[in-house]
Amino acid sequence: MEIDVLRSPVNFLQHMLGALPHEDALRDYESWWEAEGRAISDATDRAGTPWLRMFDRAGRRVDEILFAPEYWRALRQGYKAGVVWRAFEDQSLETCALLDYITCYYDPGLTCPYVISLATAVALDQHGDPALKDRFLPMLLRRDDTVWQGATWMTEIKGGSDLGANVETIARPAGDRWLLSGDKYFASNAGADLAVVAARPDDAPHNVRGLALFLLPKRREDGGLNYTIRRLKDKIATRSVPTGEVELRDSEAWLLGSREHGVHQILEVLNLSRATNSLGSAAIAQRALAESADFARGRIAFGKPIFEHPLMAKQFREHFETLRHAFALGWESIRRLDEVWRQKPPYSDRYHLFRLIAHLAKYWTSDVAPQIARWAMEVHGALGVLGEFPVERWFREAMVLTIWEGTCHRQILDGMEVMERKGAHHLLFEALGDWASPDEIAHIRRRVESHLALPQSEREAGAEEMFRDLAMFTARAAVQSLSLSEAPI
Amino acid sequence: MEIDVLRSPVNFLQHMLGALPHEDALRDYESWWEAEGRAISDATDRAGTPWLRMFDRAGRRVDEILFAPEYWRALRQGYKAGVVWRAFEDQSLETCALLDYITCYYDPGLTCPYVISLATAVALDQHGDPALKDRFLPMLLRRDDTVWQGATWMTEIKGGSDLGANVETIARPAGDRWLLSGDKYFASNAGADLAVVAARPDDAPHNVRGLALFLLPKRREDGGLNYTIRRLKDKIATRSVPTGEVELRDSEAWLLGSREHGVHQILEVLNLSRATNSLGSAAIAQRALAESADFARGRIAFGKPIFEHPLMAKQFREHFETLRHAFALGWESIRRLDEVWRQKPPYSDRYHLFRLIAHLAKYWTSDVAPQIARWAMEVHGALGVLGEFPVERWFREAMVLTIWEGTCHRQILDGMEVMERKGAHHLLFEALGDWASPDEIAHIRRRVESHLALPQSEREAGAEEMFRDLAMFTARAAVQSLSLSEAPI
Amino acid sequence: MEIDVLRSPVNFLQHMLGALPHEDALRDYESWWEAEGRAISDATDRAGTPWLRMFDRAGRRVDEILFAPEYWRALRQGYKAGVVWRAFEDQSLETCALLDYITCYYDPGLTCPYVISLATAVALDQHGDPALKDRFLPMLLRRDDTVWQGATWMTEIKGGSDLGANVETIARPAGDRWLLSGDKYFASNAGADLAVVAARPDDAPHNVRGLALFLLPKRREDGGLNYTIRRLKDKIATRSVPTGEVELRDSEAWLLGSREHGVHQILEVLNLSRATNSLGSAAIAQRALAESADFARGRIAFGKPIFEHPLMAKQFREHFETLRHAFALGWESIRRLDEVWRQKPPYSDRYHLFRLIAHLAKYWTSDVAPQIARWAMEVHGALGVLGEFPVERWFREAMVLTIWEGTCHRQILDGMEVMERKGAHHLLFEALGDWASPDEIAHIRRRVESHLALPQSEREAGAEEMFRDLAMFTARAAVQSLSLSEAPI
Amino acid sequence: MEIDVLRSPVNFLQHMLGALPHEDALRDYESWWEAEGRAISDATDRAGTPWLRMFDRAGRRVDEILFAPEYWRALRQGYKAGVVWRAFEDQSLETCALLDYITCYYDPGLTCPYVISLATAVALDQHGDPALKDRFLPMLLRRDDTVWQGATWMTEIKGGSDLGANVETIARPAGDRWLLSGDKYFASNAGADLAVVAARPDDAPHNVRGLALFLLPKRREDGGLNYTIRRLKDKIATRSVPTGEVELRDSEAWLLGSREHGVHQILEVLNLSRATNSLGSAAIAQRALAESADFARGRIAFGKPIFEHPLMAKQFREHFETLRHAFALGWESIRRLDEVWRQKPPYSDRYHLFRLIAHLAKYWTSDVAPQIARWAMEVHGALGVLGEFPVERWFREAMVLTIWEGTCHRQILDGMEVMERKGAHHLLFEALGDWASPDEIAHIRRRVESHLALPQSEREAGAEEMFRDLAMFTARAAVQSLSLSEAPI
Repeated sequence: MEIDVLRSPVNFLQHMLGALPHEDALRDYESWWEAEGRAISDATDRAGTPWLRMFDRAGRRVDEILFAPEYWRALRQGYKAGVVWRAFEDQSLETCALLDYITCYYDPGLTCPYVISLATAVALDQHGDPALKDRFLPMLLRRDDTVWQGATWMTEIKGGSDLGANVETIARPAGDRWLLSGDKYFASNAGADLAVVAARPDDAPHNVRGLALFLLPKRREDGGLNYTIRRLKDKIATRSVPTGEVELRDSEAWLLGSREHGVHQILEVLNLSRATNSLGSAAIAQRALAESADFARGRIAFGKPIFEHPLMAKQFREHFETLRHAFALGWESIRRLDEVWRQKPPYSDRYHLFRLIAHLAKYWTSDVAPQIARWAMEVHGALGVLGEFPVERWFREAMVLTIWEGTCHRQILDGMEVMERKGAHHLLFEALGDWASPDEIAHIRRRVESHLALPQSEREAGAEEMFRDLAMFTARAAVQSLSLSEAPI
Repeated sequence: MEIDVLRSPVNFLQHMLGALPHEDALRDYESWWEAEGRAISDATDRAGTPWLRMFDRAGRRVDEILFAPEYWRALRQGYKAGVVWRAFEDQSLETCALLDYITCYYDPGLTCPYVISLATAVALDQHGDPALKDRFLPMLLRRDDTVWQGATWMTEIKGGSDLGANVETIARPAGDRWLLSGDKYFASNAGADLAVVAARPDDAPHNVRGLALFLLPKRREDGGLNYTIRRLKDKIATRSVPTGEVELRDSEAWLLGSREHGVHQILEVLNLSRATNSLGSAAIAQRALAESADFARGRIAFGKPIFEHPLMAKQFREHFETLRHAFALGWESIRRLDEVWRQKPPYSDRYHLFRLIAHLAKYWTSDVAPQIARWAMEVHGALGVLGEFPVERWFREAMVLTIWEGTCHRQILDGMEVMERKGAHHLLFEALGDWASPDEIAHIRRRVESHLALPQSEREAGAEEMFRDLAMFTARAAVQSLSLSEAPI
Repeated sequence: MEIDVLRSPVNFLQHMLGALPHEDALRDYESWWEAEGRAISDATDRAGTPWLRMFDRAGRRVDEILFAPEYWRALRQGYKAGVVWRAFEDQSLETCALLDYITCYYDPGLTCPYVISLATAVALDQHGDPALKDRFLPMLLRRDDTVWQGATWMTEIKGGSDLGANVETIARPAGDRWLLSGDKYFASNAGADLAVVAARPDDAPHNVRGLALFLLPKRREDGGLNYTIRRLKDKIATRSVPTGEVELRDSEAWLLGSREHGVHQILEVLNLSRATNSLGSAAIAQRALAESADFARGRIAFGKPIFEHPLMAKQFREHFETLRHAFALGWESIRRLDEVWRQKPPYSDRYHLFRLIAHLAKYWTSDVAPQIARWAMEVHGALGVLGEFPVERWFREAMVLTIWEGTCHRQILDGMEVMERKGAHHLLFEALGDWASPDEIAHIRRRVESHLALPQSEREAGAEEMFRDLAMFTARAAVQSLSLSEAPI
Repeated sequence: MEIDVLRSPVNFLQHMLGALPHEDALRDYESWWEAEGRAISDATDRAGTPWLRMFDRAGRRVDEILFAPEYWRALRQGYKAGVVWRAFEDQSLETCALLDYITCYYDPGLTCPYVISLATAVALDQHGDPALKDRFLPMLLRRDDTVWQGATWMTEIKGGSDLGANVETIARPAGDRWLLSGDKYFASNAGADLAVVAARPDDAPHNVRGLALFLLPKRREDGGLNYTIRRLKDKIATRSVPTGEVELRDSEAWLLGSREHGVHQILEVLNLSRATNSLGSAAIAQRALAESADFARGRIAFGKPIFEHPLMAKQFREHFETLRHAFALGWESIRRLDEVWRQKPPYSDRYHLFRLIAHLAKYWTSDVAPQIARWAMEVHGALGVLGEFPVERWFREAMVLTIWEGTCHRQILDGMEVMERKGAHHLLFEALGDWASPDEIAHIRRRVESHLALPQSEREAGAEEMFRDLAMFTARAAVQSLSLSEAPI
């Protein structure tokens, strides 16, 4: 474990991937974070949840979010570096994902607006009619300070797992557009200029098939606020993305794509978040390890740095190896998404393969990142539980990534479904054939198949062990894939 | 897993231990917490680190800690219930430990002053000369609001693991007492009326043999402050115990016991904290499970409470089983301590056996409690990362218990030492013989012995796996012991 | 200026009024504040605006205000002492006003719920039909912890001065009750069990004549919340009363009295707040003086306490004299209100006399209290601008009393109106005839009459000087009245 | 009152002074504040007292003040604009004072480091020996981000008025320098690179003649911290200057000037702060008026903006006139200081004249600024007591300026002394002869002389009325002086 690899996200990316696309841009972005962003991020976290100024002095509703000015500067830095526009320029998500990895190493919360802005742009590009695209897409692709931000608001107060039952926002047709009414309970990037929103047309059935996807701008045609923020949530982390309760009251919106495929389009939107989240968990793990290594090299006990004590040295090596596996698995999900992000229903097998890998990656990376972050607190001893030092932050950040985009529980069940319904595990074994031995594959195949043959309730109850084994198998293969195809530093 | 057992610490104690000593007192204490204490504890946690008023308006140093008044009411509740005096009345630590368990279920921070006040009383009783005991012990044993609080201050800024190297507080003799000068960096229960303090007589060697133990009151003979608090630490949890940086400047103190046995006496003081800490981790795990079960029974997804979803139901059952093992292992350490807490050097084998069990218990309980608490956050989904709801608190609390009294790393290394030097593992296998099968014992014995035969560096590097296995073996035996000897509900 | 008079609100009341009604109850109440309440009040102020928990974990709207538990204990203390029920038992407001004075000395914020609960009870008693009174009045008059709280919600976002134009809450008839919809922007005691609310029936004109008064309970007939709290306001003081933005959405309510007299009834409700507010300003001034005197007696400069420096000693004497005048003027408004609080339209001359005195008292006391409180900060020197010491709080508290119930500007203009329309100044000179010399009266009469003869715009522009002179004249007469009729200590 | 004059500090300066020196630089500085600084200042105030990180993770004392990064950017903006270096380049304080006025309009706290850095540079330049000046003065005069900050630390815990009695910091000679030990209780700009400090050589008498002035750098010769910060004070305002309790423990320092003139040199240091403080109070009054005018023009009641209501319109006009007087008086003190800031004992009459004017200006401006700021809160109605809106801030800021550099009480007594001892009032009447009528001068001369003829205790007790009259007379003459000599806009 090289300390220089640990301390720099770009170095680590190079260590894992070899040559990087747009390396200069990545290095520039990292340099900005080291010179300015780090301290801004610390201050944002310390400041806690920002105030929401709902009304101005004249009594007009304004819903202004009172971050420190430098927050906005930091936020725009990523947009300018290309967290959205590069996907359209490169016709590939990879560089955006690398920029998100760097962002997450320094400030996990900021990754969220970047990823959901990209998801908004993609959804609009895929499903918006030409006039809508002409009107709004350029705003999201700007490369300067005037860039618009996007958001993806699905979840309501009864929870995000069972959208079919829990989305109560109603859409009523009104000329060329729709009027939406309802409350979005965990609306990330509240204040966004443009949101894609799940709602139920008023004549649609109250189940998952009744959902549709809409595009909703911040301002009404007449310039007024098109949604209001009831309040910002006091989150324990990711304080650099304002998460709010958003109230839609006859809010103007446009249907995206077709009502028939509403639920598929909603899931497409989540694909990007889920895959990037896996990389983000790895980035947090890297950061927690880097902070710990710095500390442990300076802390002396029994005559030498605790970094050199055999037990701790072994733990560092093992956690670094876990980090490599987590990254490789997350990256595998990005690569697979990059092949299918332009697909529409009916989806190909590669789309289902991506979905399984994304569930495996989200599950496993968000299980290991908090463990590493928690261990980093232990390395710091009593300093690990003080607000004064940054290390406890990484656990808080890791936990948010574990929970949003679906908890481990959710990933397991959804991953099971794509195996049961689409046979995605077969696609997986085929796809990974080059990077695992035939014996390994035969072994894990038997493991999975015999599990899937169990009765329903038993199958679900015991799913975690099987799913973890499958995730670790996939992670090992992914590491192997990288070391075969690339020349690491 | 009965929900009524989960929701009540006394019910759980009865489930594990059968008949309880002073059950009425325990029930009364729990009732107070349900009626009043819970809400006070929530408010204390929300309020964050209290202010320290260093000077009064007239410019006199006062070091007043500005908790809400109700905090002090809650604090005294436990003292009156017997967290200190019952140990002396019963000549046993067990009821105190049970009261601490209840306290920890409701407010882990408060357990700290209780335990270290008891440790102060025990140290004074064991090692104080008669005049000193007559003067101060009654203050600590009062059963009303005038009771004094104790504290045990060892750690300095360079860390608590390597006391021999890191204690820089110097003691100079001055007539019948000593004058201490130095800084205690993590002084729990700052503001205590009486503290036992590790310091180095000015003519002593700069190693672990040079340490001695002192009794230091809050007020000088002339009524002035005998120590000052430089500041209170902003901890992420256990906010109900003020942890400060304490400055000793020619502070008056009395030597406890003999200089020759200073380091042993210091370790004796830690025994109680360590054993109680293990129970406390179990209490936090119980609380986190109770909160999750309440939530999961009310949260509906896909048509039924998520508590009844097969995968989650299985996780609840497994975590409850882990909780039972953690408690049993913690309780084993309390029972063993209860046999030896009056010993002085040279210690018996039973003392060394206790030490091994305490290390195993501290290690394993403080590894599993944060895992369960983190999982409880996941069960709550997005609510799990909001400051608004109590569940994220239990992870924060669990982490403090993981770290103070020595991290996992420390427990492993110290546990290894007592096996290597005192052969404590042999005593353990003997002691647990009735509650484990001969095969199990033979297996674990081989595992331990072959590990101890490894070269030093390899032995230390690989210690964790072996130590975890040994801890789990001991926990299983402890559960078995309880179910054989007691009639659970 | 006796320090013992300054330090005790009851002593001061006795100094000003001689024998006090229910003196034992007043002394008991003060004793509770000294023993427990003071520290609770300090903690409440330090804690800042409490959290509003809008939803419970199951996603149900609950709007729970998360004060520390001891806050609720302090709150109920006053209700039990009689801040509401004594007015009905005594058929007089005087004892309630004395209890409010004591409350305000210790915690100005708490006075608010007490006064508006009383105002709610009075409005219901005066204007509710018998069934409504039977149903709700007993709840407000309870003498134990189950007592209900009232509230008086008039102001909306465009401001409270011009209710005729700014009340946009609409009331629609619905069977035996009404459904109210609108937003109350500065709703004091948000969370109250019962509120009197200004609204406009949907067929009423959009002016001050179109307003009516309604009684609105916290819970709907079906048990649900009848209003929601959008948020609590971050006030700089009076943090012990939660002030919120309240949303009425088809909220169930009953009409009080007649629509024809709606605006008069609304003003009646404010009478009590306004008169008590004047006493409250005096209480804050007393507290600020008491704190300063304590400090100045302990602070030494140039060899003696600064309290004894000639310039400061003179300032203390003058401010104490101002306090006496402020109290006497405030008390005069209470006494006058006590004569007319049961009147209904058409009102007698004594009612209009009360109104003028109340405007004079609100104006002048809320002008002098912040001045004294600000001076108290200066006395403390640099300690006066630290959050650590309580003195700066009294300025913050004083400013809230200056502003709510109508700023000085508002009092002047409304006071002018009652002179212009009702000739209330003639009633005043007559009423104060015994306590001022004929010359004084002749002088002030000429002053007022010549001012009232000015052209409209000039009359309004120059109103403050005249109004101040009239207020000070009235205050002097009121002091004279007390010293003639009572035997001060 | 022109709204454009009110809303821009440079416009107001031009309105008062006509042509401005370095006008372009002043306009640039104002533009920066409008574009960036305003929002930074709001965020700094909202953030409250910053954290002090006393130790780094390795346990080294670091005393790092955790402001948001943008704070440091804002801070350096003024240094670069010339708040220190221009005084030396121009050989005049005027442009620095104008920059300070602009700073104070936007962020009163920041003015403090600027003024005391200049005072440090002046003290060093006046009294440092050549080697000391060569070493340190260039650091303070840098025009880029590497500029050093100064500080002036006199006050100790017993208060700042009576330095002779209350300075307990002791200086012991040590070779070419001194070692200082003691505590400075209100140390503004804690963290400064260089401080001038009052201390008492160990052989000096315990009175005001025993004081001497020292120069004390942040770092010892060996690079270690030369002073430590015990804590930062929680002030209610001026949060952009960190005020701390500073501990000197054998801190290395150099004597400035001669011990014989120590107390005079200390007072010289205060001259600049006092004069600038008067301008600062005016700047805060301007800001409070500007905020109120903006609000009052947008707030409608009874059919028109409240700004146009006759009573309020009159109040605006009067307060603006008061602002003009306050500024003119403050500016008079700056102009007089500019004539004498290079003097050393024995001082000329013009020096004593400056001192009287400075006391009059500090007294009166800091009496009227909080009054105007408080009135601005009233104009805002209920918004005036919300933390959400900026107006209440200006009262808080004004109060700090009232108190630091000596309260009103102190100014009166010190102003009296310079009249009694130096006959400074005679110099004043002579100096203002051109700008007041002979009758006015004769009148005020009689007023002052007859007062000074009173017995001591009576003279002091009644001093405020006379002093206020003299201040207002001087302010009127100063306004007259400006309108005669300059062509206002």
